[in-house]
Amino acid sequence: MSDTDEEVITEAHGAGGGQMRELIEELAVSRFEDGAADVPLAALDDGSVQRLANGGGSLVVTTDSHVVKPQFFRGGDIGRLAVSGTVNDLAMMGATEPIALTCSLIVEAGTPVETVERVMESMGETSEEAGAPITTGDTKVMGSGDIDTIAINTTGVGVVPQGSHVPDAGLSTGDKLIVTGTIGDHGISLLSEREGFDFEGDLESDVAPVNDLVATAMDAGEVTAMKDPTRGGLATSLNEMASKAEVGIEIDETAIPISGAVASAGEVLGIEPLNVANEGKVVMGVESDDADAVLAAIQAHPQGEDAAIVGEVVADHAGRVILDTGFGNRYLSEPEGEQLPRIC
Amino acid sequence: MSDTDEEVITEAHGAGGGQMRELIEELAVSRFEDGAADVPLAALDDGSVQRLANGGGSLVVTTDSHVVKPQFFRGGDIGRLAVSGTVNDLAMMGATEPIALTCSLIVEAGTPVETVERVMESMGETSEEAGAPITTGDTKVMGSGDIDTIAINTTGVGVVPQGSHVPDAGLSTGDKLIVTGTIGDHGISLLSEREGFDFEGDLESDVAPVNDLVATAMDAGEVTAMKDPTRGGLATSLNEMASKAEVGIEIDETAIPISGAVASAGEVLGIEPLNVANEGKVVMGVESDDADAVLAAIQAHPQGEDAAIVGEVVADHAGRVILDTGFGNRYLSEPEGEQLPRIC
Repeated sequence: MSDTDEEVITEAHGAGGGQMRELIEELAVSRFEDGAADVPLAALDDGSVQRLANGGGSLVVTTDSHVVKPQFFRGGDIGRLAVSGTVNDLAMMGATEPIALTCSLIVEAGTPVETVERVMESMGETSEEAGAPITTGDTKVMGSGDIDTIAINTTGVGVVPQGSHVPDAGLSTGDKLIVTGTIGDHGISLLSEREGFDFEGDLESDVAPVNDLVATAMDAGEVTAMKDPTRGGLATSLNEMASKAEVGIEIDETAIPISGAVASAGEVLGIEPLNVANEGKVVMGVESDDADAVLAAIQAHPQGEDAAIVGEVVADHAGRVILDTGFGNRYLSEPEGEQLPRIC
Repeated sequence: MSDTDEEVITEAHGAGGGQMRELIEELAVSRFEDGAADVPLAALDDGSVQRLANGGGSLVVTTDSHVVKPQFFRGGDIGRLAVSGTVNDLAMMGATEPIALTCSLIVEAGTPVETVERVMESMGETSEEAGAPITTGDTKVMGSGDIDTIAINTTGVGVVPQGSHVPDAGLSTGDKLIVTGTIGDHGISLLSEREGFDFEGDLESDVAPVNDLVATAMDAGEVTAMKDPTRGGLATSLNEMASKAEVGIEIDETAIPISGAVASAGEVLGIEPLNVANEGKVVMGVESDDADAVLAAIQAHPQGEDAAIVGEVVADHAGRVILDTGFGNRYLSEPEGEQLPRIC
């Protein structure tokens, strides 16, 4: 292979879609021995699940590095995003009571200490809000110009009763799909801010820990699969759920809650709200008989008032998502390419 | 406060010494609620230890981000360093059988895929060598120029029988101090390579997982405290151990194993081997009666042939390290300031 056609990492590799998954499968999964029997690395789920040797439960572990730009944005900051992202990934596996979070900072030399302080303050507050203790950490400094300001890794650990974790792949025909609130807020708000648009303050990120909301939903009925639609948005999450369970998903587009501000800004920016990150929302499959009870429980939660049933799982179209637009059906595919770099 | 005297992050804040600890205490520890009862965040140990609710043991969690430059160096690479660093931090707490490691990559757009591939290959091999399964991961891409090539966070999880973890603060008067091999190899080798010196290939990093070596030592006698002397070197680790246990440590400088190549290169570079990172060595306190047995067991291990007893714990000079140079005594202080940025 000549230097000129040397394969390089592109921003599309970080966009959370198919190119990233292929890269991870090719580069990492094939190389790592993996002791996580229940949900291994190869499942590319939100985290891993493995039984503790003494039979006392299953360990759930998840990790995320956060590189969002700007670090402080409308509705949140990189610290709140880091804690929420990791708490939410644990919750997506059914581990709604995190037992440990880690905080590892990489900071650029020359960054004002006050900036780091604000981020730590926010992490502490969000950790308390989520009931997720930060128990250990690490700090590295890179030279000026070697990293853009700050990156944060948070890793989360939870324990669930053996066999009670919720995998991405759990959908069955007949399950209803619920989204817990308006879609597209984080991505559209962040992008509009980054592009210098001012939509009169109607837009802000939805970044928040949703573990309590998820616990409420799980108490109300049988939740079969969950994703938090971050990078790649609801479109990517639905496609992953359909593909992993080898089922079809039919979505009623008009039922998807999207705020007026997000819809308008999305049109101006030329960005589809279904394709962008949410940082405080969940899409979940629920057994048909339980769907109304789960929806009611979610709507009664302070974070769930806009929740809606948006579709159902069908036997046809295995691995695909069909969108009923109100004027006809089309496949909803996941966004490819770079979409929005450094969105989380 | 005016802009001109605004406090900024400096490379000294990442050097692993007192300035870093102060920053962490001021910025993070004070802000984070921490549920880790046995070893909390505030202990600034190698990781956290907390009891599992069902009484089945204590959970040990540790995290490290790795930003070493260059990414490939004599004796290793950033992937081997990341896995070893985290496995070793778990081992320092007494968790010699990791149950899960995470791998979170931040990669610069434009990085050759082959570079990432080599790093993943190395992580997989080191994970297998250590018996430490990588169970989950994450990938983020930053724009070209936003990060220098690649940073890796690895977080590790282990379980130990309740109460059997080994804290940094465990030293008691009379304990012997053992180092498991030659000191200074990683730091001196990396710095000489970075500065363009060629010491005829005698120098290379010692980066390796030492969990098996540690298990061997713990089987042979009572290990009371352990550190892997990474950033800040043996000098920093000894000072931390003395300070946390509120004891004095007397070290016989002539007993510290240092290779001829490291000693010579250290002189040429003007760097003290006791002040630089090791990535495959341990300094441990051992109960006096067990010291010979533990030393023999370590020396019989493939990674421990150069091990030596280098000193002992005394009641005087609480919190200080006294170095007997052979020509008299002096306090061994920990290095301050930036020393070697991006050494790990």
